[in-house]
Amino acid sequence: MAKVNVQEKIQSENERVAAANRAAFAKAGVLVLNLVSSPGSGKTTLLEGTLDRFPAAGLRALVIEGDVCTARDLERVKAHGGSGVQINTGGGCHLSAQMVSEVLGRLDLAAADVVFIENVGNLICPSTYDLGEDAKVVLLSTAEGDDKPMKYPTIFHESTLAVLNKTDLLPYIAFDIAKVEKEIAVLNPRCEILRVSALRGEGMDAWISWIASRLAAKRQSAKRAG
Amino acid sequence: MAKVNVQEKIQSENERVAAANRAAFAKAGVLVLNLVSSPGSGKTTLLEGTLDRFPAAGLRALVIEGDVCTARDLERVKAHGGSGVQINTGGGCHLSAQMVSEVLGRLDLAAADVVFIENVGNLICPSTYDLGEDAKVVLLSTAEGDDKPMKYPTIFHESTLAVLNKTDLLPYIAFDIAKVEKEIAVLNPRCEILRVSALRGEGMDAWISWIASRLAAKRQSAKRAG
Repeated sequence: MAKVNVQEKIQSENERVAAANRAAFAKAGVLVLNLVSSPGSGKTTLLEGTLDRFPAAGLRALVIEGDVCTARDLERVKAHGGSGVQINTGGGCHLSAQMVSEVLGRLDLAAADVVFIENVGNLICPSTYDLGEDAKVVLLSTAEGDDKPMKYPTIFHESTLAVLNKTDLLPYIAFDIAKVEKEIAVLNPRCEILRVSALRGEGMDAWISWIASRLAAKRQSAKRAG
Repeated sequence: MAKVNVQEKIQSENERVAAANRAAFAKAGVLVLNLVSSPGSGKTTLLEGTLDRFPAAGLRALVIEGDVCTARDLERVKAHGGSGVQINTGGGCHLSAQMVSEVLGRLDLAAADVVFIENVGNLICPSTYDLGEDAKVVLLSTAEGDDKPMKYPTIFHESTLAVLNKTDLLPYIAFDIAKVEKEIAVLNPRCEILRVSALRGEGMDAWISWIASRLAAKRQSAKRAG
């Protein structure tokens, strides 16, 4: 019981800080996407391709990079013109709202349209931590196998969009993409799905359009509320 | 502080049960390998190929399958002649010694030489939980990218063997296998490394030999002690 109570206390404190983060993001009018996946599904490569395409789309990005160790991903993001901050969890298996809150002061939200939070590579623990984002985006690499949604249901249930990445590997592996899309629809009928090869560019236009449309919807809704 | 104390208590209780598991495994003279990796690195495919080769090597296996949800992996193992038990953590991100202890009574250890514990797909949380195994074996799929050991150092530090799996995909991806081997050696100079394609069979003989040699060493050492 003690364990459960501590867990509940951690979650409730996380919810409180996530709400404050969400308010800060809303005030700045930025769309915030929390990217979650296994290690090596291509979150950073997706960000690289996104940053390459953002100027032409008239969009400005900031990136919060979460990792157990190293600043490798932030260095990659910076090489593609991105700016942002690195959070190293030092063993921690997910980002928390508190970790995000602590770096918010170092981000110039007024100079951004979209904030990407690249979570720690983990398909389980980040699923249940709200960081104050507008949407969770789950990535699944085709190389991970087509049995994963049902084996890791929570993150697919919590996500607004599923990016099926590394479609360029489809000719070389056994991955039934239609089966995966069906299983995601069973777990979460409202979850949108995009087929993407972040490396080769396939599906990237649809991804950029999806972001632009979510941003427009958020700003429209804020206008009506204000 | 409360959080730290609870974590310490959980870990110390886990150590106690792990020691009891280890004693039960030692009494039965079985070698126990704890397989850890990201989702979709090929743990179950490695087990399928292992079970196919065990009879010719004169070895008998039991499998403890850990997953958040579904019994899909145990079904695959059974289709290759394996027998064992499924543990569903129901959201939990790693197996614990207690979970293993609870299923030990359902395993006929006397009829096995090797027990494989397939941990939940997660490169972080299982790293620090001793289940009573003789060795942790970490799998890394080439499709996950060659930057992973330094980003997830704990599991490479804790493992006795690293299996670099899906070498069949090397022609289609950017993965510097020599760089990965060097980084693993920096993190853990005693960690052995095997290049494997569990799907195509490459490196599987070396894997079976490694198991047989670890088993012989364990039994030899028990004989000397007894």
